[in-house]
Amino acid sequence: MKPINIGLLGIGTVGSGTFAVLKRNQEEIARRAGREIIIKIIADRDIDKARGIVGDDGTLITDDANEVVTHPDVDIVVELIGGYSAAKELTLKAIGNGKHVVTANKAMLASHGTEIFAAAERQGVMVAFEAAVAGGIPIIKALREGLTANRIEWIAGIINGTGNFILSEMRSKGLSFDTVLEQAQELGYAEADPTFDIEGIDAAHKISIMASIAFGISIQFDKVYTEGITKLTGEDISYAEELGYRIKLLGITKKTSKGIELRVHPTLIPSRRLIANVEGVMNAVVVKGDAVGPTLYYGPGAGAEPTASAVVADLVDVTRMHTADSKQRVPHLGVQPNLLLDIPILPMEEVVTSYYLRLQALDRPGVLADITCILAELEISIDAMVQKEPKKNEEQVDIIVLTHLSVEKNINAAIAKIEELPSVMGEITRIRLEELSSK
Amino acid sequence: MKPINIGLLGIGTVGSGTFAVLKRNQEEIARRAGREIIIKIIADRDIDKARGIVGDDGTLITDDANEVVTHPDVDIVVELIGGYSAAKELTLKAIGNGKHVVTANKAMLASHGTEIFAAAERQGVMVAFEAAVAGGIPIIKALREGLTANRIEWIAGIINGTGNFILSEMRSKGLSFDTVLEQAQELGYAEADPTFDIEGIDAAHKISIMASIAFGISIQFDKVYTEGITKLTGEDISYAEELGYRIKLLGITKKTSKGIELRVHPTLIPSRRLIANVEGVMNAVVVKGDAVGPTLYYGPGAGAEPTASAVVADLVDVTRMHTADSKQRVPHLGVQPNLLLDIPILPMEEVVTSYYLRLQALDRPGVLADITCILAELEISIDAMVQKEPKKNEEQVDIIVLTHLSVEKNINAAIAKIEELPSVMGEITRIRLEELSSK
Repeated sequence: MKPINIGLLGIGTVGSGTFAVLKRNQEEIARRAGREIIIKIIADRDIDKARGIVGDDGTLITDDANEVVTHPDVDIVVELIGGYSAAKELTLKAIGNGKHVVTANKAMLASHGTEIFAAAERQGVMVAFEAAVAGGIPIIKALREGLTANRIEWIAGIINGTGNFILSEMRSKGLSFDTVLEQAQELGYAEADPTFDIEGIDAAHKISIMASIAFGISIQFDKVYTEGITKLTGEDISYAEELGYRIKLLGITKKTSKGIELRVHPTLIPSRRLIANVEGVMNAVVVKGDAVGPTLYYGPGAGAEPTASAVVADLVDVTRMHTADSKQRVPHLGVQPNLLLDIPILPMEEVVTSYYLRLQALDRPGVLADITCILAELEISIDAMVQKEPKKNEEQVDIIVLTHLSVEKNINAAIAKIEELPSVMGEITRIRLEELSSK
Repeated sequence: MKPINIGLLGIGTVGSGTFAVLKRNQEEIARRAGREIIIKIIADRDIDKARGIVGDDGTLITDDANEVVTHPDVDIVVELIGGYSAAKELTLKAIGNGKHVVTANKAMLASHGTEIFAAAERQGVMVAFEAAVAGGIPIIKALREGLTANRIEWIAGIINGTGNFILSEMRSKGLSFDTVLEQAQELGYAEADPTFDIEGIDAAHKISIMASIAFGISIQFDKVYTEGITKLTGEDISYAEELGYRIKLLGITKKTSKGIELRVHPTLIPSRRLIANVEGVMNAVVVKGDAVGPTLYYGPGAGAEPTASAVVADLVDVTRMHTADSKQRVPHLGVQPNLLLDIPILPMEEVVTSYYLRLQALDRPGVLADITCILAELEISIDAMVQKEPKKNEEQVDIIVLTHLSVEKNINAAIAKIEELPSVMGEITRIRLEELSSK
């Protein structure tokens, strides 16, 4: 059978991984796809670098991305340049030219997915994006196909390897955030500008895509509540540990009777949960379905070949299905495009979860009474309260409170009131807590 | 669009789970599948029980399974009666009548998969079997579709919930095998005749199916080396723990330069691995691909609704694809059926792995020297050796040896020789050990 021709946009980390995997496992991949998959043309700003990676095997190389998306022999365009507008324009142009698209670009899909999928549906082509979420873990496939029997109740995922590396190192080596960030940058795990990773934006891109598939809603990145890990201290990590919890940066989405929760923030989770033990740059996603119960998917969330693994799996899927008609294909977001639901995203103030609060107070009688009164007035019930010994030469003590399920707005009010107490010093640290139990 | 009609063979545990899930999540499932999926007819030996479960909703109920597989309105037959010959006959009959088949029957596929898939391919129908391995975990989909970019290097899975429940309880509560087995039977986790679970046969069915997909070979259940958990003692479990290991019943398949390893046996794995922390009736499968690295899939491996989750996911897949032509469909074993490879299965004596040996010896000078000499002669290198304190009023001591990678036949020879030593009492306990590292 005639081979499938790929046009590759960008041969950086993931691009060269994709090139290497397609070449090394050519035969294996053809046995699975039913025909060969060949990279026909590559566009990259740096032609010499591209030629250096590819060698002289007849692959066309250009610095004009337009050549790729319009090339008459190209069946599938693989978009790996990242970013927003240029990637989006090229993707739409490829679609307009009747090409299928495989992309790893979560930022683009989180912001322009609706437009891109609509264009693809009009044109009768596929846009596949397994590599956009959790690298090599086939989580999009699990959500879109593996769990179709279920009403998904919630998803919680470690979906940013850089963030998880930093938190793992802070905990295991007792280092500060800044020190570990520097190390991560030296190791190539964090970029020179690490904002997307450490502020939770990358995780927000990914959770907005997963929420859309899980609940059959449109992608709503702009509504994700996003809080990063930059303010976490070693103290909070070790207090959490003492109480039986680990702190992880989680992307969480949950369907409640009032709406859908969509949030990214540092989260205490019980140390005994599998996902609490996911360390370093690894990713893991827990999906709770009403029929299946809890399932977990674990693997490398980034890197050249792990991400290429997802890109190539999409290429095989598209190859198998490119002659099928659209009703035989899996819809982009899992549900038929005209059947997306309009369920409201819950504002963060309405979210119900548990909380870890750390505050510094003067070691005087009545302080705990004042705090517990404020919490009681706001209907916040206490799961555990620990007053630490005063540190050397200090007269103030750390007080840790774990709450039962409470409404975020009540916690906000309680924090404001407690911070006003004359015996309480400085700002209160608030970290959300999820039991992630299978119930 | 016209609904898809299901004929259900057997409405026991999984059958009633499937009925319940299809009914409860009808709308959600239709949004994903693109049309309704309806159970048209059910065959069960006990018509009254079936009617009791189904109620009076117009579903036909019969005690004649042939009526289901020949019914002109039935598009997909769901085979949930289990066992070998009757299930196989009905499956082939359904295929012969042009029906697609969804089955949870690992025993049937492990023994007759080749014949069944060949018949399906001739007839142009699909046989889907996600529910046959690891219950609700979409592991077949991950292997057949999610990881197509990879050369799979190995798979190691906890794929029998009963066995894992027994080992978890033995470890956490310090109970004996017999006591826990009884409890498992009372809880409904183990059957009255638990042979398939505790002797590793069920796990062998499943690993033979996974190996076939991972390596593109035919299903070879008869070549799986199978050892159950009946001989494990609390002592071994706690010695393993002291050395940093947990004992799990694993199904393992590995591609080596000499052939494919295919084996089920109790295995020591480092306690820090995620899979070592999978407890109770849960299942987990680690798949190591050359591109992606290690990935892990975790969830409930049995039970009515978790298994139904996989059955219904298959129904959605078949519904989406039933009008497609066969080259667009995912091949039954992942690779094109004419391209299966003929790679030999390695005899157990040729397998290379590490070992835990426990022996009882008299507490006399020279014993350790004798043992280490025998091991050295057979080129077995020692990773750790521990001599325990003699127990009260006994003059014999337990000696534990952990070996580095060794050939099984050398270990067999060493065990025979060591058992002949006059200072060594009784039989040596041998448990295999896998590091399962990502390297």
